Amino acid sequence: MVQAKKVVTVLGAGSWGTALALVLADNGHSVRLWGNNEDHIQEINDKHMNSKYLPDITLPHNIKGYVSLQSAINGVETVVLAVPTKAIREVVANVQKVQEAPLTIVHVSKGIEPDSHLRISEMIEAEMDAKNRKDVVVLSGPSHAEEVSLRHPTTVTASSKNIEAAEMVQDLFMNQHFRVYTNPDIVGVEIGGALKNIIALAAGVTDGLGYGDNAKAALITRGLSEIARLGTKMGANALTFSGLTGIGDLIVTCTSVHSRNWRAGNMLGKGYRLEEVLENMGMVVEGVRTTKAAHQLAKKYEVNMPITEALYNVLFEGEDPKHALDNLMGRNKKHEMEELYKFMEEK
Amino acid sequence: MVQAKKVVTVLGAGSWGTALALVLADNGHSVRLWGNNEDHIQEINDKHMNSKYLPDITLPHNIKGYVSLQSAINGVETVVLAVPTKAIREVVANVQKVQEAPLTIVHVSKGIEPDSHLRISEMIEAEMDAKNRKDVVVLSGPSHAEEVSLRHPTTVTASSKNIEAAEMVQDLFMNQHFRVYTNPDIVGVEIGGALKNIIALAAGVTDGLGYGDNAKAALITRGLSEIARLGTKMGANALTFSGLTGIGDLIVTCTSVHSRNWRAGNMLGKGYRLEEVLENMGMVVEGVRTTKAAHQLAKKYEVNMPITEALYNVLFEGEDPKHALDNLMGRNKKHEMEELYKFMEEK
Repeated sequence: MVQAKKVVTVLGAGSWGTALALVLADNGHSVRLWGNNEDHIQEINDKHMNSKYLPDITLPHNIKGYVSLQSAINGVETVVLAVPTKAIREVVANVQKVQEAPLTIVHVSKGIEPDSHLRISEMIEAEMDAKNRKDVVVLSGPSHAEEVSLRHPTTVTASSKNIEAAEMVQDLFMNQHFRVYTNPDIVGVEIGGALKNIIALAAGVTDGLGYGDNAKAALITRGLSEIARLGTKMGANALTFSGLTGIGDLIVTCTSVHSRNWRAGNMLGKGYRLEEVLENMGMVVEGVRTTKAAHQLAKKYEVNMPITEALYNVLFEGEDPKHALDNLMGRNKKHEMEELYKFMEEK
Repeated sequence: MVQAKKVVTVLGAGSWGTALALVLADNGHSVRLWGNNEDHIQEINDKHMNSKYLPDITLPHNIKGYVSLQSAINGVETVVLAVPTKAIREVVANVQKVQEAPLTIVHVSKGIEPDSHLRISEMIEAEMDAKNRKDVVVLSGPSHAEEVSLRHPTTVTASSKNIEAAEMVQDLFMNQHFRVYTNPDIVGVEIGGALKNIIALAAGVTDGLGYGDNAKAALITRGLSEIARLGTKMGANALTFSGLTGIGDLIVTCTSVHSRNWRAGNMLGKGYRLEEVLENMGMVVEGVRTTKAAHQLAKKYEVNMPITEALYNVLFEGEDPKHALDNLMGRNKKHEMEELYKFMEEK
């Protein structure tokens, strides 16, 4: 496939932003990789390395590091937003201050804003005036950055309210190692990406308790079902949860020791308290915020979410993890189909 | 829950048969565990151990070992059939020779008979005269025997054409560690259990090639979709594939190094030939037989099964695994929803 070569800006020089910059560079685009740590950016420009986040990888020379946001976005049409969910509003506000033309924003974050209950694309739309943006696209799916940087086969989904924008993003990123599908259901793609972090936390707890693969498989299965129950109430297509950004991303997050959410849950299962876990992780555990948001949403939409409730009680009400998990196992549900029909009821 | 105590026979003293005998014994039933290796049976009766299959586990005294099939089934109403899929017809034929009353058969095997394309329950019905059997029930789900024997939380599904028979089996086995759901869709339960072995083989191949978690998650996601496409054509309810015997069992088989099918695929991915793999395993790799059956079924029902086809070519046509897998990744499908709609089209 012949792709027009473009100039694309990636905001955020962490592992995922850098890996995505690498995919774009492999496709021949000129990539501007912006970060706020001068030393990292200098290393990218001088040594073509990002040793903190992707050691062992040499970056192509068509990735250039930027510390000035204005220079980074000057003249580009498409910006990939790869900053932590917590930083999104701030970075978007800063972009808006310096941009000279409307932008298409591709975000790669996962979460739901507590209290406002906004999805990431809605947060971006809320923060950036309509005149300053073209389309908002989400790129999501089962994708460890390290594997992408090693050119291991990876498949993800691009979604937007405007399917042509999703197709544009598909064309930008698609290559023989990195397959991009499109899906018009942005609600389902964003909800699946956010809520899977809750199940990953819970899977970490069962592993921390030493419960094994049988328990974890049951948890993932029933977790997918409760994600879909809430998601469909919020307007998602139930089918999306059977796809890459649903079950695919859920599997990768729940079964990999690289997953931050899984690791946090694992410590909880081993008896550490939430404060200790968060301190030890030294970085944001998105699933903790998302559990609070989903707990509120379950009430609002009157959806039964037993795993989310159990985890909420462990995280915020001081319930003993073993007690919470054993209660979950002991629930008096006897017909699997009952549960499954609920999964699909909104289809 | 108060359960009536019964006498139950388990045929097959391998790891799964022994673990299920343990669950029944924990529930207070008298269990007759039949096997054809006299030394094993003697060890079970003398030392309350099955050291070959479940070392470290002491068996309750209400499990008694039997080498005589006639004595083992004399006077019982329910027989759990826990022998390898290949041995099912022979063992059922032998039961029929010595039984004195009609039996309910609970099978725990996974596979599809090559050429005849019969599911396990259909094989049993074909082999045993209608006058000699009451109901045939399948018990299936994500369940490593070792974990069940350690009383780790496990959830499975019982299914039968007669839902009351499935509920009887649920009552027999259900306890606080071992949760049993019922599902009336025996076609879906049996197909999911059989076809997941194909995907586990393929997942082993991608791991053997060193492709990583992203590729495996994509493979499992798309594998579930092709299982559902064939299953619904064969009369299954699509929802069953979102449950414990679908995605649940698929996850456990594809992500555990204990899985025989995964291990065989892993060796194939590392460059061993099928003959070497089978010799090295020293036991049946059910997914190899099932791949052949599913390849035939895909043709018969005109269903698109790209993973099954790729694996068939590797196993039986000598195709290079890397070539087959890369081809699979490179397929020119661009809209995820297209694929997902196919998944549900028969719902």
